[in-house]
Amino acid sequence: MKETAVVGVGNTKIGEWYDSSLRELTDEAISKAVQSANIDPKEIGATFVGSMSSGIFNQQEHLAALIGPHSGINAPAIRVENACASGGSALRVAMMAINAGFYETALVVGVEKMTDLIDIGDVTTALGTASDGEWELGIGATFPALYALIMRAHMHQYGSTLEEFASVSVKNHKNGSLNPDAQFRKVVTMETVMNSRMIAEPVRLFDCSPVSDGAAAVILTAKDVAKKYTDDPIYIKGSGAGTDHIALHQRESLTSLQATKRAAETAFKMAKITPKDIDFIEVHDCFTVAEVITLEDLGFCKVGKGGKFSLDGETALNSTISVNPSGGLKSKGHPVGATGIYQVIEMFHQLRNEAGKRQVSKNDIGVTQNIGGSGASCVINVFSRGA
Amino acid sequence: MKETAVVGVGNTKIGEWYDSSLRELTDEAISKAVQSANIDPKEIGATFVGSMSSGIFNQQEHLAALIGPHSGINAPAIRVENACASGGSALRVAMMAINAGFYETALVVGVEKMTDLIDIGDVTTALGTASDGEWELGIGATFPALYALIMRAHMHQYGSTLEEFASVSVKNHKNGSLNPDAQFRKVVTMETVMNSRMIAEPVRLFDCSPVSDGAAAVILTAKDVAKKYTDDPIYIKGSGAGTDHIALHQRESLTSLQATKRAAETAFKMAKITPKDIDFIEVHDCFTVAEVITLEDLGFCKVGKGGKFSLDGETALNSTISVNPSGGLKSKGHPVGATGIYQVIEMFHQLRNEAGKRQVSKNDIGVTQNIGGSGASCVINVFSRGA
Repeated sequence: MKETAVVGVGNTKIGEWYDSSLRELTDEAISKAVQSANIDPKEIGATFVGSMSSGIFNQQEHLAALIGPHSGINAPAIRVENACASGGSALRVAMMAINAGFYETALVVGVEKMTDLIDIGDVTTALGTASDGEWELGIGATFPALYALIMRAHMHQYGSTLEEFASVSVKNHKNGSLNPDAQFRKVVTMETVMNSRMIAEPVRLFDCSPVSDGAAAVILTAKDVAKKYTDDPIYIKGSGAGTDHIALHQRESLTSLQATKRAAETAFKMAKITPKDIDFIEVHDCFTVAEVITLEDLGFCKVGKGGKFSLDGETALNSTISVNPSGGLKSKGHPVGATGIYQVIEMFHQLRNEAGKRQVSKNDIGVTQNIGGSGASCVINVFSRGA
Repeated sequence: MKETAVVGVGNTKIGEWYDSSLRELTDEAISKAVQSANIDPKEIGATFVGSMSSGIFNQQEHLAALIGPHSGINAPAIRVENACASGGSALRVAMMAINAGFYETALVVGVEKMTDLIDIGDVTTALGTASDGEWELGIGATFPALYALIMRAHMHQYGSTLEEFASVSVKNHKNGSLNPDAQFRKVVTMETVMNSRMIAEPVRLFDCSPVSDGAAAVILTAKDVAKKYTDDPIYIKGSGAGTDHIALHQRESLTSLQATKRAAETAFKMAKITPKDIDFIEVHDCFTVAEVITLEDLGFCKVGKGGKFSLDGETALNSTISVNPSGGLKSKGHPVGATGIYQVIEMFHQLRNEAGKRQVSKNDIGVTQNIGGSGASCVINVFSRGA
């Protein structure tokens, strides 16, 4: 893989945007990204859009053709869907397109507008379509239920505690309180998390990422033209993807994700790094246990010790490794198909020292981990400033 | 673009498969394709799945991860959606991936199972999500209505006749009667077509492609490894994609598709061909007027004369140019996201002289044209036997 570069980014704040349409959100993100890269829209060769379920959430498929031309980008457009890993997957397809020489420059958009469905039960069902419909959603296993199984298995297998999981939520809310684009900007206490409403035992409300609206866009270019658009591009040094069975009962393990491990192996090898080289990482904390398992799968701590690692403060901003400096899905919000692109935007700002109060002090290597569903899909990318 | 090769194909017959699940359909197509290419599934580097709306049709997103591992392909999987051009777009992404050197071999699957929705009105609405939801479907403009506007405009602008449009249907049904995998295998008369039930004036039932279930799969490889799998690969010599506004009122013209023209320009230039070099073509005849317009946009006849060209028999099997030898969407059937892959499979069989009674006699260059919605997306690929 040749390296590619991110030369401009734009996004909406994440929230509940009842008064904005799907394309108003993407218009905002795209126009900001185009402005950020100072690029003539005519130079954009292709548009790739990541969205999980605009069909169910907004009764709108054919999303890439809807979004691109409406923002004045008349390039060939393709939508990519991989559940909550749709954003990361769209970026990966854009990397393929540029590496293939099909295009020199691509617009990559992630978007989800989840609040159009009036009944929150419908939102849960819509999200549930990322599970195995016949074996999971169809028999009532929504995502809180699936992650409850995973969390319970982790507690059973390793003796991890509710306090440990809660510490993930507290840390991410603390980071998110420093992020002006985050959906939730309040710090929370351990007590708040641990006494919050039970959703699917042992998963409580504050173990869950929220229902969110948001759009995020980046301009990706071939390495050798990046400096045309900005003096300070960030580069993708490695990329990996992994896929596993969706249904939990078909997986090798409940408490470790093969998809993450495979994606990491490819990405880290390509970037010639080990976990020790990573300064900060945006991980897919759709539920607190997902962050715990990721810490273990990526080798930041021993297997079974992800919760303790978190409770001990090793993942706090500017500690051993800064995990989710943006606030993560928990606090920044989780417009599902957009999340993978928001993660890239955090890379962009952190690596360029533009992250304000949440700026990490050590920022040579940043990594994103974007998961689909309960972990059947995973995309991992490695970023740095130096070409 | 480096050339890629199709080395194996597999598909279900197209029909109304009430008793098969989504993944049973893809299992059949994938296992046939793997067998056809005589490939060890472990050698498949990635899976790309084209599907328009498995979310609405089957309450199943995250489709690529569902399908791949279930068929024993544990490679990274990505779904691509571009309405009815999802299949062609998935193939294009696979070409990017192989050209980029990410993988040497990819499985590309197209699938749609449209009969799970019990109410046919729901199917029409589901398909309508490929239009501009706010400006078209939301105010009642379903696809028959949109194509009725296009057909009426063509008649008004060029004086084309109902008989001319009907001739497309008659010809495609005749071809389809020779295709054992087609959904409809009966020849029909001009009278049948022209007296069929009115759907949206002037579009009658026999101007419309049907509601279909089907799955199709191809194995795509880098050119230099193709012969490892078959003595007789077919090669993709050129590929192009185009995107335009979805909403008809935002287009330059109602009776010509910019997306087709842009895709063709890129693909034909890459393959170093002109329309005269094309021996046979699979075009996207979702409605009869769509085939007429395509004949004009691709330069097979004069603008406004596509209908006459068809009525005169110039597009019949082994005439001036064989258009839709498979029977096209009209007769072969139109499982929307799978159609682009079924078109490739027709290329495979025709170029290898395996098309039985519908075999075209001149088969050096074949082309596919896969459209999304009312024409906002288009993918065109050029195929030949010679490397």
